[in-house]
Amino acid sequence: MNAKNQPSIASLRSGDLRALARAISTVENRAPGWSDLLKTLFPHTGRARVLGLTGAPGAGKSTLVDQLAGHYRKSNRSVGIIAVDPTSPYTGGAILGDRIRMQDHFSDPGIYIRSMATRGSLGGLARTTADVSTVLDAAGRDIIMIETVGVGQDEIEIVRLADITIVILVPGMGDDVQTIKAGIMEIADIFVINKSDREGAERVEREIRTLQSLATRSDGWTPPIVKTVASEGAGVDQLAAAVSSYEAYLKKENLSLRKSVENWQERLVEMLRDVLLEKARMHLADGNLAKLATQIAEHKRDPYTLIEEIAAQAEENGTDRSSRHSG
Amino acid sequence: MNAKNQPSIASLRSGDLRALARAISTVENRAPGWSDLLKTLFPHTGRARVLGLTGAPGAGKSTLVDQLAGHYRKSNRSVGIIAVDPTSPYTGGAILGDRIRMQDHFSDPGIYIRSMATRGSLGGLARTTADVSTVLDAAGRDIIMIETVGVGQDEIEIVRLADITIVILVPGMGDDVQTIKAGIMEIADIFVINKSDREGAERVEREIRTLQSLATRSDGWTPPIVKTVASEGAGVDQLAAAVSSYEAYLKKENLSLRKSVENWQERLVEMLRDVLLEKARMHLADGNLAKLATQIAEHKRDPYTLIEEIAAQAEENGTDRSSRHSG
Repeated sequence: MNAKNQPSIASLRSGDLRALARAISTVENRAPGWSDLLKTLFPHTGRARVLGLTGAPGAGKSTLVDQLAGHYRKSNRSVGIIAVDPTSPYTGGAILGDRIRMQDHFSDPGIYIRSMATRGSLGGLARTTADVSTVLDAAGRDIIMIETVGVGQDEIEIVRLADITIVILVPGMGDDVQTIKAGIMEIADIFVINKSDREGAERVEREIRTLQSLATRSDGWTPPIVKTVASEGAGVDQLAAAVSSYEAYLKKENLSLRKSVENWQERLVEMLRDVLLEKARMHLADGNLAKLATQIAEHKRDPYTLIEEIAAQAEENGTDRSSRHSG
Repeated sequence: MNAKNQPSIASLRSGDLRALARAISTVENRAPGWSDLLKTLFPHTGRARVLGLTGAPGAGKSTLVDQLAGHYRKSNRSVGIIAVDPTSPYTGGAILGDRIRMQDHFSDPGIYIRSMATRGSLGGLARTTADVSTVLDAAGRDIIMIETVGVGQDEIEIVRLADITIVILVPGMGDDVQTIKAGIMEIADIFVINKSDREGAERVEREIRTLQSLATRSDGWTPPIVKTVASEGAGVDQLAAAVSSYEAYLKKENLSLRKSVENWQERLVEMLRDVLLEKARMHLADGNLAKLATQIAEHKRDPYTLIEEIAAQAEENGTDRSSRHSG
């Protein structure tokens, strides 16, 4: 994408869906101008409410997100949905193509859905999701929902950028349900037990309560547990009410800024890491990488010493350059 | 841990379990000397066969890993298991404590099980897992099994360091089972359908076959599908046979080195990034990070410009230092 194709900020801000789609693509694909675009958009952000929704595969996240979007549309709030899919690290694209669900809301410009693929680059997904959320925020979306599958470090990083994190559990997920909870207890601001008409919903609720009793949150909030049957729309209003309660709590306790500062501390380090990764790749370019990897695979040299040498060399290069200037 | 407590390489290599535990802790906690330890150990590695096992929560990974370990013990091969748990990013520790399973093998020094917690550091888990695997390899373990929960980018990075990747599915995981498969189709060398006595096992098998028919692997291998009921030990011998077949295939086609070179290309970039990230953190230290994050949270400056400035500064610092020397 060249400068000519750069989305116009004005059309983006006026709600033009094509401009929005183009801006998101620019940012997602790191197309030329992506960084300048974000710089221009950033001052227009901070108004949207960002919800993060996570849960194991099969928990019914998509259905719940769709229902919640419908709920917010009733009060005329515009919605942006980022659906983060675990897809191939090699092709970088979703096998499944467009989701059927997108057709449900197709005619409503007040709901914009974007699927994001897991990218091959190391750890870049959380960063890209954050940047796409920035675009949606600047485009004036009132509510942004970020939906992720799974409970890995990736998902934790992604939902961390949300103002409000909703963790979705379902009854009968098997033996490892405790393990899931262990990973997400501390990131959940609200728990949802979806498919709560199934057997075992009470057991899941009891388990959450038990884990909650073991530790109190530093912000004093006790995450409520909302039971839903998303496929029938049951419990969706209660979930929206729980979101509002937490918003009110954040406001009352003046926690929003604190949370945002904490998030930005993490994100700044991550952004810097990404920039440095690019530098690392440059240092290992020139066909050098394959040669070095072969030597290591053949056990002819050890990788730990090698990396120290390259890092030292990288600094020396900086020194060389400046010596040239000062000499 | 000071130099006095450094594990002795000789006792580690002789099979001393305490030395092994201490070496792993040193590496996992990045305790003083960890890097030198890895440098010393690296020449002794490359002999172990590393299996990566991944699947959604509830798929029965632990049980399968335990059964497989038992199988290998029958032919007197020593086993190291790294169980990567999705735990709190805040406490860095597992809530659940030691696993019950550990007691099963407690009396057999031929099976060593280590649980690894997800660490708060960005993207560091794959790196640490790789390093722990290096220690187990140097300690003479014949088979190393790395067990991870989930199908995120994290898990893909972790299993990438395995020689052989086993993806475990179960029937009846719900609507999103297709989504899981999309993420892991290309990393699986062997598929396991565990709990295959449940309804729907044939459907899962058919779905895998369908997805397999859509794309051929660059190495020409068609991942076999093994049905197991791990809790009863059913299918475990067949799984071990599938592992042997793939080993033989790698050998016959001379693919082991190629795979290892590809892995090391990724790992080198990641290692270099980690070193540079440490440097980046230093630039953001001195209470600076909190101040900057606050300015961004208050929308007083934009993060994208800031990061560019810091990255440039990092290079300039090198320049300053050298100017001082040359001036």
